Amino acid sequence: MSGSPEFGKVVVFGVGLIGGSFALGLKAAGQIEEVVGYGRSIATLTQALDLGIIDRVGVNVGQDVADADLVLLATPVGQMPDIMARIAPYIGAQTVFTDGGSTKEDVVAAARAHFAEKAGQFVPAHPIAGAENSGAAAARADLYREKKVVLTPLPENSVLNVARVRSAWEWCGAQVHELSPSEHDRVFAAVSHLPHLLSFALVHDLAVRENSELYFSFAASGFRDFTRIAASHPEMWRDICLANRVALLEELDRYRAQLDDLRVALKKGDGVALEQTFDVARRARRDWAGGGK
Amino acid sequence: MSGSPEFGKVVVFGVGLIGGSFALGLKAAGQIEEVVGYGRSIATLTQALDLGIIDRVGVNVGQDVADADLVLLATPVGQMPDIMARIAPYIGAQTVFTDGGSTKEDVVAAARAHFAEKAGQFVPAHPIAGAENSGAAAARADLYREKKVVLTPLPENSVLNVARVRSAWEWCGAQVHELSPSEHDRVFAAVSHLPHLLSFALVHDLAVRENSELYFSFAASGFRDFTRIAASHPEMWRDICLANRVALLEELDRYRAQLDDLRVALKKGDGVALEQTFDVARRARRDWAGGGK
Repeated sequence: MSGSPEFGKVVVFGVGLIGGSFALGLKAAGQIEEVVGYGRSIATLTQALDLGIIDRVGVNVGQDVADADLVLLATPVGQMPDIMARIAPYIGAQTVFTDGGSTKEDVVAAARAHFAEKAGQFVPAHPIAGAENSGAAAARADLYREKKVVLTPLPENSVLNVARVRSAWEWCGAQVHELSPSEHDRVFAAVSHLPHLLSFALVHDLAVRENSELYFSFAASGFRDFTRIAASHPEMWRDICLANRVALLEELDRYRAQLDDLRVALKKGDGVALEQTFDVARRARRDWAGGGK
Repeated sequence: MSGSPEFGKVVVFGVGLIGGSFALGLKAAGQIEEVVGYGRSIATLTQALDLGIIDRVGVNVGQDVADADLVLLATPVGQMPDIMARIAPYIGAQTVFTDGGSTKEDVVAAARAHFAEKAGQFVPAHPIAGAENSGAAAARADLYREKKVVLTPLPENSVLNVARVRSAWEWCGAQVHELSPSEHDRVFAAVSHLPHLLSFALVHDLAVRENSELYFSFAASGFRDFTRIAASHPEMWRDICLANRVALLEELDRYRAQLDDLRVALKKGDGVALEQTFDVARRARRDWAGGGK
């Protein structure tokens, strides 16, 4: 941590949990001189300023982006294309971009559409850090410590730009992995996006019943764990589902087929098939958890 | 806690988490003189003896049941009918029975079939206490403290017998509620049995893939919570699913219809419908959690 900061000026779009924690992590590592924040909500920006997450609220996108060393897009993925269109004309030659979006193919497509020949300056990223709480107040310098961050580098990225973005996430304490954008989206459709959809669906199904209170009053710890992710941000998850809908539909159909199989076993009273399915699941879940999860 | 114990001799079938904690809870409250344990596994019974959960291992069912004040059936529900058949001929006039099964209509039907005119001495119960860990070693005197226990009294129960069984669970620290057996099974199909089935299904679906390691390696905290219940006991959950399959099939079909709706919204790119579903779920989940869950 000796020497001068690796990044002089950093611009963050969206100063909530993801963007705020990125800024705080780099600050804690002594790797930035100035953080400029942009966002939809003046209240959030003011809060980020008060909390020392950003040094000033940006007022001139063109100027700020032109001489920034690093730009992070940390808004819901649905807002990224508009921001890209807005900043594209001002991109300086030395600036690298990364993002914190939970889907990657759509973000890559938007970057190519808007950044055109400068798309090589964009190195997409997905930090895998819990987001049950959101907003600037939830941001922490150590949010990414020992957490995985997936980079999905593009063929047009230079080795140098990938290294710079990797380095920024590593200064935040993250373990950086690489996948292709489509690999990323398939994996996360299965292990993250589908579970969220399923959890939202279960709680919705109970909530719309006339006697929903009776049901909720007897829900216990298994329900609590299963539905914790149903308290996630609706707009963010709408965007993720839409952005990754091809892969998510594939996973959903695969899952529905699995439920159809279980339905048949249940209907027939086929205890062997049920127990076998449960047993395979339990072993896999325990093996995974045994890996320190 | 003054005066003599409310229950002299208690017989427990199945001395794992549920049965063991019941015995320890009553002992801690000073409400029993002797606990006799029965079970399939000599190792578990010996362990329960070593841990002070039971005072002796039962060797003569007829003798032990005839003069017991209280009998608890705490085995997986699939084993209860056999046990009932075994003990039915020996039921003393003063003995009350309860159970710890997660389903009630099947247990009630078995009790009526086997206990016949003595079914009124059986007051069914379902303690809602987490069971991620199982076995005698996991038993604790305070497992039921401030936890709900649902009694599903039968028309043939005497008021006295219901009061005695209620009292036993209350000595363990539980909050006792009452539902009819069919109400109970419908409610728990929705808030417990279906979530378990869905969680097992998700992990199974990932575990059987050729490249399952890639998927598991990027699973994070949302996945961890959603799948915690997929580490539950396969045999126990097989029995529960089979025992409650009518209500569970209804819930499963209702849920599949809900997934079909979400699939249509996703396919059409209908962000409004998705966000609305997620929003209803999030509000309900937060309201529920706000109630101290």
